[in-house]
Amino acid sequence: MALKTLSAKAAAALDKELMSTGAFSIDQLMELAGLSVSQAVSRVHPLSKGRRILVAVGPGNNGGDGLVAARHLRHYGYQPAVYYPKRPKNDLYQRLAKQLEDLDVPFVDDFPAALQSADHVIDAIFGFSFSGEVREPFPAVIQAMAETQVPVTSVDAPSSWDIEEGPPKSGVGSNFHPAVLVSLTAPKPLVKHFRGRHFIGGRFVTPAIAKKYDFEVPAYEGIDQIVEVGPDGLKL
Amino acid sequence: MALKTLSAKAAAALDKELMSTGAFSIDQLMELAGLSVSQAVSRVHPLSKGRRILVAVGPGNNGGDGLVAARHLRHYGYQPAVYYPKRPKNDLYQRLAKQLEDLDVPFVDDFPAALQSADHVIDAIFGFSFSGEVREPFPAVIQAMAETQVPVTSVDAPSSWDIEEGPPKSGVGSNFHPAVLVSLTAPKPLVKHFRGRHFIGGRFVTPAIAKKYDFEVPAYEGIDQIVEVGPDGLKL
Repeated sequence: MALKTLSAKAAAALDKELMSTGAFSIDQLMELAGLSVSQAVSRVHPLSKGRRILVAVGPGNNGGDGLVAARHLRHYGYQPAVYYPKRPKNDLYQRLAKQLEDLDVPFVDDFPAALQSADHVIDAIFGFSFSGEVREPFPAVIQAMAETQVPVTSVDAPSSWDIEEGPPKSGVGSNFHPAVLVSLTAPKPLVKHFRGRHFIGGRFVTPAIAKKYDFEVPAYEGIDQIVEVGPDGLKL
Repeated sequence: MALKTLSAKAAAALDKELMSTGAFSIDQLMELAGLSVSQAVSRVHPLSKGRRILVAVGPGNNGGDGLVAARHLRHYGYQPAVYYPKRPKNDLYQRLAKQLEDLDVPFVDDFPAALQSADHVIDAIFGFSFSGEVREPFPAVIQAMAETQVPVTSVDAPSSWDIEEGPPKSGVGSNFHPAVLVSLTAPKPLVKHFRGRHFIGGRFVTPAIAKKYDFEVPAYEGIDQIVEVGPDGLKL
């Protein structure tokens, strides 16, 4: 079975459909997406490998998923720290940030400095709606993630990668190869350039939606919100 | 350690606080509460014991938790059926019901008939805000749950029980003793009358909130959203 993927355009349409006819609120979907990410991080980086998780949070929904993941990881016993340089006035993101403040999760201003004392990084900067140029202050952050020895888990897409074409041919992100990727709902075409551990998350897709968008709901196990898949899309 | 409990009044104040200064939306809290219930059911009633889960859904937030649990159980591979005789016009409950319809989860009208072909029942009729009389059509439903040999998991409170005093001295619910109880955020005083398997769920309470309301955040394990506790409140 070849791995079926979802283009950026199809992913946007699917999200819109989930929140209209699918009757999901963005609060619900983001909670489940962030929960998936937290479970993947817990799987690849158990507490015994070090508790310090640095979460790089972008200005959109991908960043929101990262904020939710940070909260769950804090409840699991990790010590997340959040780098969140561009905070939109969006009510939901503000609430997700407040939930972290109430758990005494620190927000840090200097990403490279914070990276020095991190055991694992979550890249929740850009998701499937990214295209074009990486704007400030994120080029240096992506560069730092590309160069560090600390393992990185990217949410839905390695930030800076083109959703269809994968890593940029040159410049920011051309050398960024995260260790782990969590594809939400379905993998995007960029996964054919990805060589790390690959999880699919977002256990809320109905069989009818998967059929309509021509992808497979992966074979989740038990109560897991994630499943690890190989290059063929089959469960490992 | 004695089991610390949360009165009905304190539980209502805590919920209100989570949704105001705590910055949670009801969508988020209900998603996590329902997820907790689904994990408890999966723990006490694995798929091998039978897939047919009958969910009795009341008109308020306890019912909403049941709708969310039904959705997650469907994704885990169970075959839930939902009895939902009083559907308020509340937008959230309508959306949660639509999410189940999109998964082809059947809604049933005759609870006693549906009980004949159920392997497990979830009682999500009334929660901590219940007091007074059990209104129609729920007396017969509670009676059926009291008399059946099918195991019942109650959400937050066995429906009809007084939140402080436990089972009614006579009438509807006086002989209702569910096999399993999932207390959300913290046990209510009625647990001192409960003799089945007891779980605590709702892994979103901050240490500050627990301290303010004078209860303990239980020792959840790994990524679990539930923890089973004994009569002393300690993890089993």
